Amino acid sequence: MIVDCHGHYTTAPQALWDWRKKQLSQKTVSSAELRISDDEIRQSLESNQLRLQKERGSDVTFFSPRAGSMEHHVGDARISAQWSRVCNDLIHRACALYPKNFAPVCQLPQSPGVAPQDCIAELERCVEELGFIGCNLNPDPSGGWWKEKPLTDKWWYPLYEKLVELDVPAMVHVSSSCNPAFHFTGAHYINADTTAFMQLIQGDLFKDFPQLKFVIPHGGGAVPYHWGRYRGLAQDMKKPLLKDHLLKNVYFDTCVYHQPGIDLLLKVIPVENILFASEMVGAVRGIDPETGQYFDDTKRYIDSSRLGAAEKQKVFEGNAKKVYTRWRI
Amino acid sequence: MIVDCHGHYTTAPQALWDWRKKQLSQKTVSSAELRISDDEIRQSLESNQLRLQKERGSDVTFFSPRAGSMEHHVGDARISAQWSRVCNDLIHRACALYPKNFAPVCQLPQSPGVAPQDCIAELERCVEELGFIGCNLNPDPSGGWWKEKPLTDKWWYPLYEKLVELDVPAMVHVSSSCNPAFHFTGAHYINADTTAFMQLIQGDLFKDFPQLKFVIPHGGGAVPYHWGRYRGLAQDMKKPLLKDHLLKNVYFDTCVYHQPGIDLLLKVIPVENILFASEMVGAVRGIDPETGQYFDDTKRYIDSSRLGAAEKQKVFEGNAKKVYTRWRI
Repeated sequence: MIVDCHGHYTTAPQALWDWRKKQLSQKTVSSAELRISDDEIRQSLESNQLRLQKERGSDVTFFSPRAGSMEHHVGDARISAQWSRVCNDLIHRACALYPKNFAPVCQLPQSPGVAPQDCIAELERCVEELGFIGCNLNPDPSGGWWKEKPLTDKWWYPLYEKLVELDVPAMVHVSSSCNPAFHFTGAHYINADTTAFMQLIQGDLFKDFPQLKFVIPHGGGAVPYHWGRYRGLAQDMKKPLLKDHLLKNVYFDTCVYHQPGIDLLLKVIPVENILFASEMVGAVRGIDPETGQYFDDTKRYIDSSRLGAAEKQKVFEGNAKKVYTRWRI
Repeated sequence: MIVDCHGHYTTAPQALWDWRKKQLSQKTVSSAELRISDDEIRQSLESNQLRLQKERGSDVTFFSPRAGSMEHHVGDARISAQWSRVCNDLIHRACALYPKNFAPVCQLPQSPGVAPQDCIAELERCVEELGFIGCNLNPDPSGGWWKEKPLTDKWWYPLYEKLVELDVPAMVHVSSSCNPAFHFTGAHYINADTTAFMQLIQGDLFKDFPQLKFVIPHGGGAVPYHWGRYRGLAQDMKKPLLKDHLLKNVYFDTCVYHQPGIDLLLKVIPVENILFASEMVGAVRGIDPETGQYFDDTKRYIDSSRLGAAEKQKVFEGNAKKVYTRWRI
């Protein structure tokens, strides 16, 4: 079985984005005003993610709201709470329509400067009432200005306690960037992955939360490419070896869009810490003229790698089961 | 000949840092108050960079003030101008003492929100009067808050015009981070490299400045690891192939501290665009327990790579001569 641990509902029906516009332009808008039929959901998925699953040979996608649209920096905590609930409910419906193809992952109602514990109610609702198996945690709800405390700060601890209690992992995933310095999928996403990992090196978070699990997307940002730098920095800081310091708790996905990148990832990061993912339909939608295949058809790169069958099974399925313990086929 | 295009005077005599403290704590302090003897300079280099050059087998280092201490965000433009001049003068003296071992690269007197053209006088002084062969350009003089316009903005053009006129390249290098989210050498440096490259993809800077040359340090941040993503994003944006869009003007150094990272860099980036560098004595100072060698002894990785002799010559010397045209042995 091929499990893609990282997909967003980038193709949600236009009514969702129209409702969002209304939400931001009016003082109050009822969630009930959002009308999307099951057929519209089916159509948006069958012509996109479901079609690509079939074409590329993956079986199930861990499916969350469009990351770039979480926009925790827009509006206030109330706006974010309503928007998160609406997006998560839509994910729930999509996954309920195709329970074999999608498993739900939620967006958190974060808001800049608002205590992360305020996200707990929505997290509990999603996990306990709606069967969600994970969440996306934004380390920078300010949207490119990086005003929040590092992920190792006690500021985040109440949320971590709940994640551990519920036994759900968090994918560390930023949203769009309103800082003109940072292109969102080309700089902000990758920088955030790198930044989060370095914060974790600096701290001792997993001493306090030995059961907490983070997935760092986009192949871990720059981290595997600079694995020597990170091992060396940790050593200079008198931290334990990274395999002991972080790799019991931190996982990387395979959203790296060329063969040499995937080969590097598989070479330097233990195979137990790598989860297959493509983020389709996502940041890069074209065909690589050098291969004639879609850039984000990452399964091909794993297939072509030097991993043995047992290792591939871990990357494609086994590790996902281990990390997303609430996922049941 | 082995040319290391990226070294900072991280080991400058204590008197320099003491003077800096005085500069920041007092209203005015004369540059003449800084007293460093030639012997102190010799000692600081012979026990560090010169010793390592010998031990590791490199011949010359393009040498600039300590990057983390440029601190463009500290004080104001006047403070930055005086500090830059002091640091550049010290580099000039160090290089004059060992003209075969060091070639001077200057710090620019940038200051947040201050027009880059205000750096031109110091750049001209360094290049025309003192024989400097390049400069370090900070894309984020705010020190981790990223408040400056992207590098492709016309804001920067007067400085670029001067760089082209003088025919000196700029290494795009941030300074320290005062944003607690970003560890300086573990996140801010690498993020800045990635960010700068993505800004260049988004713009068309080299249409306006076909002669402008940028060196992106630290192996290009995350860029080579995500080369597929960047090729794909450029394609989605209807930009030319990266080799045509950027690689006539943008170069990467080899400050990547493990063999698999260097191998990836050499595999995906054309060899003509790669300049040998180690950044010693720099961010990572320890010995890799996996190899028994210093993490930042990057010459070993190039030596052990699959490059042929002619390609190695380009990386070690030929490309540096091509990019740093003012450098004469």
